[in-house]
This record gives sequence, structure tokens and C-alpha cells, in this order.
Amino acid sequence: MLRMVVDNGARAPLAIKDLVTDGNFECDEEGIRLQAMDNSHVALVAVNLKTEGFTEYRCDRPITLGVNIASLTKVLKCAKDDDEVILKAEDAADLLHLTYNAKAANRVAEYEMKLMDIDQDSLGIPETEYDATVSLSSSEFARLCRDQSVLGESVRIEVSKEGVRFTSEGDAANGSVMLKPDSAVKSMKTKVKKEEEEDTQMDEDASEDDGGAKDDDEENEDEEDEGASKKRKRSKASANKAPKGKSKKAKRDDDDDDETGVKIVMSQQVSLTFSLKYLQNFAKSSTLCNRVALSMSNEVPLLVAYNFGQGTVNYYLAPKIGDD
Amino acid sequence: MLRMVVDNGARAPLAIKDLVTDGNFECDEEGIRLQAMDNSHVALVAVNLKTEGFTEYRCDRPITLGVNIASLTKVLKCAKDDDEVILKAEDAADLLHLTYNAKAANRVAEYEMKLMDIDQDSLGIPETEYDATVSLSSSEFARLCRDQSVLGESVRIEVSKEGVRFTSEGDAANGSVMLKPDSAVKSMKTKVKKEEEEDTQMDEDASEDDGGAKDDDEENEDEEDEGASKKRKRSKASANKAPKGKSKKAKRDDDDDDETGVKIVMSQQVSLTFSLKYLQNFAKSSTLCNRVALSMSNEVPLLVAYNFGQGTVNYYLAPKIGDD
Amino acid sequence: MLRMVVDNGARAPLAIKDLVTDGNFECDEEGIRLQAMDNSHVALVAVNLKTEGFTEYRCDRPITLGVNIASLTKVLKCAKDDDEVILKAEDAADLLHLTYNAKAANRVAEYEMKLMDIDQDSLGIPETEYDATVSLSSSEFARLCRDQSVLGESVRIEVSKEGVRFTSEGDAANGSVMLKPDSAVKSMKTKVKKEEEEDTQMDEDASEDDGGAKDDDEENEDEEDEGASKKRKRSKASANKAPKGKSKKAKRDDDDDDETGVKIVMSQQVSLTFSLKYLQNFAKSSTLCNRVALSMSNEVPLLVAYNFGQGTVNYYLAPKIGDD
Repeated sequence: MLRMVVDNGARAPLAIKDLVTDGNFECDEEGIRLQAMDNSHVALVAVNLKTEGFTEYRCDRPITLGVNIASLTKVLKCAKDDDEVILKAEDAADLLHLTYNAKAANRVAEYEMKLMDIDQDSLGIPETEYDATVSLSSSEFARLCRDQSVLGESVRIEVSKEGVRFTSEGDAANGSVMLKPDSAVKSMKTKVKKEEEEDTQMDEDASEDDGGAKDDDEENEDEEDEGASKKRKRSKASANKAPKGKSKKAKRDDDDDDETGVKIVMSQQVSLTFSLKYLQNFAKSSTLCNRVALSMSNEVPLLVAYNFGQGTVNYYLAPKIGDD
Repeated sequence: MLRMVVDNGARAPLAIKDLVTDGNFECDEEGIRLQAMDNSHVALVAVNLKTEGFTEYRCDRPITLGVNIASLTKVLKCAKDDDEVILKAEDAADLLHLTYNAKAANRVAEYEMKLMDIDQDSLGIPETEYDATVSLSSSEFARLCRDQSVLGESVRIEVSKEGVRFTSEGDAANGSVMLKPDSAVKSMKTKVKKEEEEDTQMDEDASEDDGGAKDDDEENEDEEDEGASKKRKRSKASANKAPKGKSKKAKRDDDDDDETGVKIVMSQQVSLTFSLKYLQNFAKSSTLCNRVALSMSNEVPLLVAYNFGQGTVNYYLAPKIGDD
Repeated sequence: MLRMVVDNGARAPLAIKDLVTDGNFECDEEGIRLQAMDNSHVALVAVNLKTEGFTEYRCDRPITLGVNIASLTKVLKCAKDDDEVILKAEDAADLLHLTYNAKAANRVAEYEMKLMDIDQDSLGIPETEYDATVSLSSSEFARLCRDQSVLGESVRIEVSKEGVRFTSEGDAANGSVMLKPDSAVKSMKTKVKKEEEEDTQMDEDASEDDGGAKDDDEENEDEEDEGASKKRKRSKASANKAPKGKSKKAKRDDDDDDETGVKIVMSQQVSLTFSLKYLQNFAKSSTLCNRVALSMSNEVPLLVAYNFGQGTVNYYLAPKIGDD
């Protein structure tokens, strides 16, 4: 049996509703994971809700819930802001039960949502080491995507020592926005480029990487204590999820939820072009948390990562070819 | 001549504009009444504006104003929030004059609206004793109707000792919201079932009813003093309006405008199914007052009653057959 | 070279975007002027941005920038509210460069807008002495236009000693709004009627007019000091712009930006009918400043003037014939 209680959280699925029609929520004792391609198979979204994000969480054995995202969104919107939300499913479930208890205790809403058999393999997203990661205010990112989409359909994102530049070209005008980092850009010495390398090689790389990451951790020691422990848990989860040896420690510095400004960590310059339609869609998750991290390597899908208290929403988008 | 002055009231007609195209406003020394079927002849709305609701009110002899509701809405929207609104019509009127005086006294707006001859008999709504009356926050009711309409087209309303349950079924999910009363459900001993009974019989029933109603009044004695006097006036008005002997005292407990929570008075359980499209339309009147009362008997139209200081807006909707 | 810096002003072009497609911005050491017919050639708009409105302003030699207003609007909307906005163009310019510097100094947005060759002569709007000028709150005017447009397509504006009346007729209702002036209507003794009169004649008229204007100035002496100096500057600019001897002093009393209420200055009654569609379009400039001045003479285009700190936006609209 699966049973979870949230204090009006569960907003993460709402953020992806314009991108994804159906999805399999994989539930186990670690939490809940969803991976889904968008309808045009260009973008991919991975939602990860950790058990710590729930007031209560119980999952007797791994269970897959095939959910129509639009239906789930409809049902979740019926919860009031201060309702206690309880989700329940039996082991051989074809129904998801949702119960909303009003704080005042005189209102109970119960919903039964039909579950679906969705033929969708987990896509096994490789843990990638990126050439550059830019962390910025999520509302600034949303604004940027909106502004640039007024000019054209694509945006070129360039990360260099000077900062990150977003460039768009259109009939009305060409535009380019430069965001300079608050402090000096942090450099990483090396980067693991090939997933095919054997484990030992990877471990060596990882230890080199740790050097860079350690500087990072030291600098942010006070505020990052909690972040560090989170990272440890995440590593464990990903080891579990991706057993083929992709347990490298994430280099993302996205636990700075209360900070403003721009942070850049990079090993080499990148310049990639993306469809603004998708970025605008991703940016709807800016309601989930104050920060977003953009991770890029040349010729590799962009990762747009929202890391909020109760989990993560990660979007992946392949670059446009021949445009940059 | 008819002449009335309101301090920016006159909002009641705006609430019905999406339901009703034309209507006859019957004006006499008691106030103004409007009865109209909705355009598809499924729902009925009765608006009653009492003279007490007007700053000034003068009606020399009964007069009928045939009004296009959309036009009246347009004209009333031209009044600013703090304007004094004066409406005037001559005895043989084919024009309604509206004057809006700004508080600051340097702005006078005058409108002349054409009146119509509408061939519409007063429908003589019988004063009905209902099996159950549920009083709740009007915004809670509006929210409920909206939430349930996301799921399906109909809602089943069931009233029992436990509370009132709203159930809706749809492709995405089935949902049911239970509202429990704040205090114990009040029971009525009997109910007058047949309008055809002769007057003496009805009076006996009425006195039995009074027993139930008295308990009710005693319990709410402090706050209901004003409500009781209102009820008396309403009885008088309805005796006047419906001379065929339907002068039973209303059992509705809808004068609790400042209270939150749910109140239920019932003589027996009811279970009825209604079109959510109409209920959502009715719920637009939630801007008129904080409370709404739903009165139901099996196989009888639902009464959705808004009782605000200046009068009442009552909606009647026949239940769907074969659905509950 | 042209270079100007504004503290997030530059909103004037946005107000005209629904009226005008393309326009020539004439820049010289006096400031920037734009004149354009609306797309249906019924209304005319003249924007005048004074150098004093810019934080910095430099224009080496007169230059004409042919701008697509929709494109400029798009680009200007990308500026944040507290950005410093820099506009730049080379002497033989086919590009306008816009730079937005964020206050926090870590964000620079740069836009390049293509300029156009627009075959549009300056229309040489004659400086007209009007029979009546009504100054009122710009939001009151916007509200009036909206209210009246609900009733009909045209509004008749009548100015008399009693005040200004806006009358509209429609199928639903006829309406008329009377705004009374706060203080007695100011009268002018004479009015120059013909632009063809020779200069000496005009000068005499002008000195007579000065008599009326002086009364005006005296009455508003304290608050008008700044206004008076503005007027002087404006006269100089208009002398420059219209070298054929139309340098009469404007009689408009539209520098009372902080005042409420209605002011009327008139030499004779006027009654003119205008299309509400255009007036509603003009009224969008009410975001630019708190006051608007309507100047009218019988059989002459209406002038709707917004005079804000950084310049003016003037709209001209020919009256409807045969309607009043």
C-alpha cells in the first residue's frame, strides 16, 4: 500500500501539465519519481519527490501509478491552500484516492482518480558532468524567456568567464541580455566526457572533481550544511535508480534558495541554441522555488533544474543544431 | 410615479444577467419583485427588493417595468461605487430614468432606458416546505460548484444527519465533498406535503411546524430578533403575492449573514442531482451576501436563496431525473 | 550621433501603439517629435519629448528615425521598471541601439532595432486657438469614454457655462454625463479664427489673448510657476517647428498635474460629436499623467492633450459631421 500526506504541496505535477499528457509515477520507499517525454518528444521532464517532503510517507513495496497529468491537475486544484492532502493507492491499484481535510475539520473532500497502464520505459537519464552551470533567480529566468520570445523563436545561451549571455534574433529586433556573476566564475579543472569509461576511471575523475566541489563547499560552508546532507541523500537515490554505475556526485550548486544574483561554475565555454517555446514552458516551475540552475555542455541537452524543499523538477532539452 | 434612491446597491440584477434576457420588474408599495425563467426554461429566478433597502422609495401605484437585463446591467455598470443612484419612472412608463450623483457633487450622469412590453405572467411560485435546508458560506458554495464542474456536468447533493455531501462523476475522476454541520442537525417533526390541503388543515400543520420553528428561534434568540421581524414582513408580502392560501411560515434559517460554517435543518434525508452549469450561474450571486441557503425536497426544485440586507435573490432548479 | 538616457521613461510610444503602425521620430537638439496619422487616416497623434525629460540627451545634428511602433513597443517592454534605458543611433542610422542597465549593475540588455524609410511628411499641425478647453482627471476621462462606449459608438461633447456634457445614444439606453467645473468658467474675450490672417493682425490678437491668459496665470500663481516656465520652453519649440508664424501662446491650462476636478476655459459654446473608438484609444495615455485637456472649436478637430513631465502626447480627431 502507498499512503502519503502533504501539507498542500504536490504542486510539482501542476508545473508540467502543459508539457506532458501522461506519466508513470514510480513510488518506492525513497519517494516518487516521474520521467516523461513531452508530447512532441523534444523535451524530457524528471520529477523527484523525496519522502522528506511529505508529512507522512509509507510505501510497502514499489508501485507504479500511471497518471493522466491533466486529470491529476484538475483534482489537485480542488484542494484549498491550507488543506491536508492525503494520497492513497492499494498495491494492485487502478485507482488513486485523494482526500483533502480542511483545517477547520468540517470539510472532507474525497476524489478517486482512474489510473492507466502507460507503456513507458524509464529513460535512464545519464548523470552528466556539465561544462557550465549557471544558477539564477527563477523569476529572472522566466522574465528572460518571456522577453526573448517576444523577439524570436530561439535563444542562444553562451557561458563565458564574463557571464551568461542570452541572445535572440527576430524581425522586430535583435536582443542580447548579459548576466554577470556576483563573484568570480568558479572553474573546474576537468570534466568527464564519456559515459562509457569504466568505473575506476570515473572514480578518479570524480575525486578530481571533488577538489573543485570542495572549494565550493568551503566557501558556502555555513549555509550549505543542509544542502550537503541533501546531496548525500540524492546520491543514494540516484545510485538506486541508475544501477549502471553513474553515481557521480552532482556538481550543481542549486541549494542557494534564498540568494539572489547569478552564480557560474564552468570548465569551458559553451554556446548553445534552444527553442524558447520549451524554455517558457519550463519556466512555469518558477513558482516552485526561487532559484533555477541551467547546466550545459556543447552538443548535450540542457538541464533546467528546480530544486525545492520537497524534491526536484528537472527539464532536459536538446539544443537546436546548426543555429549556434 | 415610481422613484427610488439607492446608495450604490442595485447590484442584484447584475447577478442574474447571464441567466435571464428580459424580465418584468413588478413595483408596488412593498418593493420590487422580478420573476423570470432562464432562456432555456430550466431554471427560475425570483428577485425581491424590499423598500427598506432603498434610501428613499416611493411608488404611487403598482407599476410593471419590462426590462432588458443586459441593457440594465450596462447602464448600472456606469455608476461609480460611491454614486447615489436614483431610478424614476412615470406611471405609464416606457422609459426608466437613472441618475447617478457623484459624492463630490460635480458629476451627474443621467440615463434613459427604453422599457419593453414583456408577455410574462407571474409564475406564482408556491411557498414550499422543504425536507432539508443547508446554509453555508456563499463563497464556499461557489468554490464547490467550480471544483465539481471541473470533474463532471452534474452534482448529486445528499443531506443526512452527518452533513451535506456533493458528489460528481467524470472521466478524469470522481469526487465527493462532505460538509459537516457545526452543531447538531436540527430536526423538524413534520412537513406539509400537499399544497391542495384546505386552509384549516394547513393551519394545524403550520402550528405543528411552529413547534419545530420555535426550537429554532429559541436557540438563535439573540441574533435572530431582526431576522424574525424580517420573516414577518416577508410572510405578509407573500400573502399578498400568492392569495391562494400559501402563507406558511418559511423555515429557512438564512439570516445568519455574519456566520461561517454549515447549518442543516431537516425532516428527512434528500438526494437530488442538479446541473452544475446552472448552479455555477446561481453562485455568481455570492457577491451579494456571505451566506447562501439550499432548500431541497425529493422530486421538487432546489431553492438556492441569497438573503441580503436589501432583499432576496432566489433561484429554483428542477432536479435531473434518473441520475440519483 | 544621437544618444539619450532615460530613467525608465520612454513609455509615451507605448500609448500610441494601437493607433499607429509606423512613424518618423524627428530628433534634434530640442528633443524628439513624432507625428503620425492613425491607420485609417482619421486621427492624428503628435508626440513631443523634451530634452529635459532625459537624464542625458545629445543630438549632434537633426536625424529622422523611421520606427515600427509595434517593434519599439516590444523592445521597450523588455526593460524592467528600474532599468536605466539608453537609446543610440549613428548619424546615417539604419539601426536604433537600446541598452538597459539594471540598477544592480549585473544585468545589461542590448537591443538592435531595424529602422525604416517612412515616406511621411510632417503634417504641420497649425497652432489653433480653441473656443473651449476642458481639463479633467485623465482616469475620469478614460472611465467616461468606456462608459459611453457601452451605450453607443459616438459621443457628443458640449461645453457651456454650466460645464461639459458627454452624451451618447444607443439601443440599450441614452446617457449623458455632466461634469461641472470646480470654479467659475473662465471666459476669453476673443479668439483668432483664421490662420490666414497676416502676422501683425495675429500679434494683436495674441496680445488680446494674453489678457485672458494673464488672469489665468494670476489665479494659479503659486502652483503655476513651474508650468509657466514650461510654457515658455514649449513656445520656443513650437516656433522652431512651425516657422510660418503660428507662434501664438497656447491657452491650455494643462499643467495642473496634481489637481482633481474640472476646469473650463471658453470663449463660446461648442457642441461636437466624436467616434468613441478613437477617444478610447487616446485615453490609453491616461497612464502617462493625471490630467488631460480637451480643446475644441466648432468644425475643427478635437485636441486631446496629455502633458507630462517629459513631454506631451497630443491627439487630434475630426468631428463627425451631421450628428450634432
